[in-house]
Amino acid sequence: MKLVRVGPPGRERPGVLGAGGEVLDATSVTADYGPEFFASDGLSRLRERVDAVDGLPRMRTDGERVGAPVGRPYEVLCLGLNYADHAAESGMTLPEEPVVFNKLSNTIVGPFDDIVRPPHSERVDYEVELAVVLGAPAQYLPDLEAAAATIAGYAITNDVSERDYQLNRGGQWVKGKSCATFNPLGPWLVTADEVPDPHALAIELSVNGETRQASQTAEMVFAVPYVVWYLSQFFALEPGDLINTGTPPGVGMGWEPPRYLKAGDTVEATIEGLGTQRQRVVDLIP
Amino acid sequence: MKLVRVGPPGRERPGVLGAGGEVLDATSVTADYGPEFFASDGLSRLRERVDAVDGLPRMRTDGERVGAPVGRPYEVLCLGLNYADHAAESGMTLPEEPVVFNKLSNTIVGPFDDIVRPPHSERVDYEVELAVVLGAPAQYLPDLEAAAATIAGYAITNDVSERDYQLNRGGQWVKGKSCATFNPLGPWLVTADEVPDPHALAIELSVNGETRQASQTAEMVFAVPYVVWYLSQFFALEPGDLINTGTPPGVGMGWEPPRYLKAGDTVEATIEGLGTQRQRVVDLIP
Repeated sequence: MKLVRVGPPGRERPGVLGAGGEVLDATSVTADYGPEFFASDGLSRLRERVDAVDGLPRMRTDGERVGAPVGRPYEVLCLGLNYADHAAESGMTLPEEPVVFNKLSNTIVGPFDDIVRPPHSERVDYEVELAVVLGAPAQYLPDLEAAAATIAGYAITNDVSERDYQLNRGGQWVKGKSCATFNPLGPWLVTADEVPDPHALAIELSVNGETRQASQTAEMVFAVPYVVWYLSQFFALEPGDLINTGTPPGVGMGWEPPRYLKAGDTVEATIEGLGTQRQRVVDLIP
Repeated sequence: MKLVRVGPPGRERPGVLGAGGEVLDATSVTADYGPEFFASDGLSRLRERVDAVDGLPRMRTDGERVGAPVGRPYEVLCLGLNYADHAAESGMTLPEEPVVFNKLSNTIVGPFDDIVRPPHSERVDYEVELAVVLGAPAQYLPDLEAAAATIAGYAITNDVSERDYQLNRGGQWVKGKSCATFNPLGPWLVTADEVPDPHALAIELSVNGETRQASQTAEMVFAVPYVVWYLSQFFALEPGDLINTGTPPGVGMGWEPPRYLKAGDTVEATIEGLGTQRQRVVDLIP
């Protein structure tokens, strides 16, 4: 299934993408695709209804906003330097074990919402990534099989970063990763059964039509089930939590000279089978 | 007012500490002291009821667990190196601007709950801190006065840390700050009106009765309203969010040789006017 959410920010309605591109109305199954939905095995209930003879009715979506495909989780965990070439372009050594950081979960916005540059910010950067949404609790998982079983599905995420805040303002990366609007997500959450191999997907991002990042998820240093297993050794992850699994080379910081985002830019990100998201960059008028 | 929550984990009931140490039942005012309570000006409603002629009824609390004094927030923001002497003992330079990190919010436990050492963990450490709970949104606050106005109250927090995970396992501090049970909070949330000067409080922590940390909040490098103002320039903080404002000298890592926590230890933390919390350290039996 491809889960979608449609409506104004904070009032999105859950739907399922139909075979003809129409949206089926899932509000009779759940009020939202939030942590409670995943924790209560909502995906199974949803699938039953989608597969039923009478199915789900069509949702009117004319002109409506597409929201992030899942409701707000408590946590957004992120991997750094999980593509070998990206580590090189960042001037950082390839890590021996996953580099973990996180960002505030209220950074999540819809796949076509604006990216807002903070006041006086000059180094806002893009990072297309494969996002994993957890469908079950994950703490001290015993093995990779158990880890894979916790994955509800996959989506495109843009781990937007302010490099000056992240690297030159003291302290930890979270400072440059958590400005409002810094995590466009979607358009869809594609359930794990429809992504037989998450490590065989083309992943790319363009700015104003020019390709900046173009790679394959096969290039990941740490594979998805290992990442989930690893994180579960440190954190008590919960259903609905989001994991950004790292970005391939070509981020703005990696160019010589660097190529950061400016107001008016259009960022477009695509992952094979997961759709396309697109944001306009705007400056905050405080 | 001194807010308390009593009951089993996840099912705590809100109360207010009475003048004689009894707990008044606040369940007629709110189901919980969570983000929604603070966002909807619940503190004013609560105060009205406490001050009313008929007041609030007494709550039966015999033998019941004391929970953290607030419901789970989305975010726990933390300051590093905010006491000059602690920076020195950590071998780190005093920062020019606040060092910010964060931890997962499901680390929050009650003030008398156990601290659980992860499997094979040898470097679990304590950090007593003054915690700030926000009562209003905080994003791009204009000045210190506006920042002070967002503060709902204060509590004791223990920013428990696994130093090996934090410093030697690659990546960011969040990895060593977010194990389950790593943020005992309480016993009370003391509302801001009852803490006229948060920078004039004795703060101390003992392990098995031996004083390890003993300082004054006057020693903070960055004062509380500045911390809130500063964080609001990077994050869209929300009502109910928790801010750990940094720890004074004397953490286990700062001793020569280091003195980390082991199973059976008792940690006791006190801040003037905010009560006392106490945890037993136990090993996880996986």
